[in-house]
Amino acid sequence: MQDHVYKIIELVGSSETSVEDAIQQAITRASRTLNHLRWFEVTQTRGHIEQGKVHHYQVTLKVGFTLEE
Amino acid sequence: MQDHVYKIIELVGSSETSVEDAIQQAITRASRTLNHLRWFEVTQTRGHIEQGKVHHYQVTLKVGFTLEE
Amino acid sequence: MQDHVYKIIELVGSSETSVEDAIQQAITRASRTLNHLRWFEVTQTRGHIEQGKVHHYQVTLKVGFTLEE
Amino acid sequence: MQDHVYKIIELVGSSETSVEDAIQQAITRASRTLNHLRWFEVTQTRGHIEQGKVHHYQVTLKVGFTLEE
Amino acid sequence: MQDHVYKIIELVGSSETSVEDAIQQAITRASRTLNHLRWFEVTQTRGHIEQGKVHHYQVTLKVGFTLEE
Amino acid sequence: MQDHVYKIIELVGSSETSVEDAIQQAITRASRTLNHLRWFEVTQTRGHIEQGKVHHYQVTLKVGFTLEE
Amino acid sequence: MQDHVYKIIELVGSSETSVEDAIQQAITRASRTLNHLRWFEVTQTRGHIEQGKVHHYQVTLKVGFTLEE
Amino acid sequence: MQDHVYKIIELVGSSETSVEDAIQQAITRASRTLNHLRWFEVTQTRGHIEQGKVHHYQVTLKVGFTLEE
Amino acid sequence: MQDHVYKIIELVGSSETSVEDAIQQAITRASRTLNHLRWFEVTQTRGHIEQGKVHHYQVTLKVGFTLEE
Amino acid sequence: MQDHVYKIIELVGSSETSVEDAIQQAITRASRTLNHLRWFEVTQTRGHIEQGKVHHYQVTLKVGFTLEE
Amino acid sequence: MQDHVYKIIELVGSSETSVEDAIQQAITRASRTLNHLRWFEVTQTRGHIEQGKVHHYQVTLKVGFTLEE
Amino acid sequence: MQDHVYKIIELVGSSETSVEDAIQQAITRASRTLNHLRWFEVTQTRGHIEQGKVHHYQVTLKVGFTLEE
Repeated sequence: MQDHVYKIIELVGSSETSVEDAIQQAITRASRTLNHLRWFEVTQTRGHIEQGKVHHYQVTLKVGFTLEE
Repeated sequence: MQDHVYKIIELVGSSETSVEDAIQQAITRASRTLNHLRWFEVTQTRGHIEQGKVHHYQVTLKVGFTLEE
Repeated sequence: MQDHVYKIIELVGSSETSVEDAIQQAITRASRTLNHLRWFEVTQTRGHIEQGKVHHYQVTLKVGFTLEE
Repeated sequence: MQDHVYKIIELVGSSETSVEDAIQQAITRASRTLNHLRWFEVTQTRGHIEQGKVHHYQVTLKVGFTLEE
Repeated sequence: MQDHVYKIIELVGSSETSVEDAIQQAITRASRTLNHLRWFEVTQTRGHIEQGKVHHYQVTLKVGFTLEE
Repeated sequence: MQDHVYKIIELVGSSETSVEDAIQQAITRASRTLNHLRWFEVTQTRGHIEQGKVHHYQVTLKVGFTLEE
Repeated sequence: MQDHVYKIIELVGSSETSVEDAIQQAITRASRTLNHLRWFEVTQTRGHIEQGKVHHYQVTLKVGFTLEE
Repeated sequence: MQDHVYKIIELVGSSETSVEDAIQQAITRASRTLNHLRWFEVTQTRGHIEQGKVHHYQVTLKVGFTLEE
Repeated sequence: MQDHVYKIIELVGSSETSVEDAIQQAITRASRTLNHLRWFEVTQTRGHIEQGKVHHYQVTLKVGFTLEE
Repeated sequence: MQDHVYKIIELVGSSETSVEDAIQQAITRASRTLNHLRWFEVTQTRGHIEQGKVHHYQVTLKVGFTLEE
Repeated sequence: MQDHVYKIIELVGSSETSVEDAIQQAITRASRTLNHLRWFEVTQTRGHIEQGKVHHYQVTLKVGFTLEE
Repeated sequence: MQDHVYKIIELVGSSETSVEDAIQQAITRASRTLNHLRWFEVTQTRGHIEQGKVHHYQVTLKVGFTLEE
């Protein structure tokens, strides 16, 4: 792991069901164009409310991936 | 959305089951007296422990709502 | 509660299923050697990614317990 | 000033023209129901973008006011 | 404690004598209109100076109280 | 809004006239290559001084945009 | 002082009388099992309220001590 | 630029008209006694309210200047 | 108050008796060379321990004063 | 400098020898695809330990570069 | 890595030569009593000055280690 | 140490070689006009890049010194 350089990007994933699903939504989308996603860190958990219910969660996360040699 | 003024209040919701349920408990209670809840942001996730188990989660959240004209 | 002194330790729990389970894993392990765990506070939520999926969550938490007289 | 107790509330004001106007919008709205607004502090400056232009600013501010005896 | 929803408000108390007295001033005032104050947390300690002496302390605190069912 | 994944980038815009213009400069430049800019948040306001005058403002902002399906 | 390695622990002390007494309570308890306590830093000042009065202060502090050779 | 040592001071400028003018007021005053002001960074934006209007802005800024050889 | 420019300096005051006395020690010393001290804000509360007792408090504070015209 | 818009990216560089080398590793890698790197700021310094020795440093940095006209 | 629970402790290492050496001093001392040190994160870099020279660095770091099954 | 009042100033030192040298550059310059420098704390580590190489480091530090009686 020690020879690599990583890049960190910031994403927001959404889900109507859970915080974990919002995280996975963001990672799934990012993995369509980036190959070497390695870790994430949640930086904000928000959400929208409709009619007194959580309508969907919005989770901001930083995602680190290996820059290829 | 751009013509409104919003007020933000801070609440703590509790749940024995999950972080998401604690969020919903706080919003459900707030919606009994406030009509236009729009969004929330989690500012702290805590909980109480009993006998080596999480007894309940306590989630602090800021909740924004529209001030009526 | 007001007569006690508490100590706070910092732990990282892991889980392949959810943030809540990662919290419980850390508390379960700590309770094997500490008797009076009282509360926790989440300070960081991270995780590892493999093949475009969250492989496991890593949740850092502070845990407070009563120092015995 | 030293004998008073103040309460601090959090508001979000919006404006299509400037940060200063967004601040004033929030204070104008609050002053319709609160008499003794004394000071504010900006805690966040955001905004919405449409067609590559700032459509409106959203400024979050804390506002302090005197609680009457 | 786990079934309740709490609301958190922010207050500033003042005192010419001590930080502790400034905290109590804010809580005394709040308890005139709110029944179930439960805890506080100090978020800022400031004060005014006159003639090279602390004239009064101004302590900002968050105060949590139970929302009645 | 709830089905999308957003990416957040960080930019610095400059202007000799105002904070608002520096924000717009950054957004104008970003919108030349990115189609779905949605919101921004100011994270730092700096500037350079020449001859005792503000020569130009430098505003750092995070900008969120929709990742296309 | 420059040859030592220090360890930092986090404690919560309580007192019905003052912030200073809560600090001393925590240090007194810690010094029963640790010999070389050197300094402390307050990281949080909280308290419990009963009947509109501060019932007791809870002060969180980090305490540094020398690890023996 | 790389051979210099800079000193950073903290100032509060006031203005009845705008944030930008409050920044300039502070810099104008500082430049009467300091020759080599180079940059500033805003650390807080506050203001006073009178009769439901912003009476004046108070902007806290850090200002860096070159220490002469 | 709105026409002035203020400068903010950072001081550490010490006292064997209380946090409040440490604040006053710092302000007393500063007022020997500065005429228009106006306010302070505590930014850190530390202290030294000897023989399991708080030997003295060290309180860091920012102090604002008016720059004369 | 005042006419440009800058973009800021976040990188993690690694090195077995020093913090400075880890910074340079990240910048060297980034400069293979980006022409106008201008400044960096360290946001985190971590590292891995093996057999009681620092095996390598991992330094997270923000890097700013000029967006070409 | 995903099955483990980690504990994080906070240490201060000192060195007259470099930041890196101060980190290693803390880790060397900790590894005398703890077997599974895994990573560290620097949380503060300070130092003492004598006669206008850095006499020694003091680096505070969090160190994570595996709790044995 | 407990009878003194300290003042804290903020400086930026630069060096083409290392973080440690940038710290020493700032302290050397400050010690030409201030006699009782006692400690420093690093608050920011930045640097400039030229041609894909770190050209120089810029380290911001707070420096504490004793105010003479």
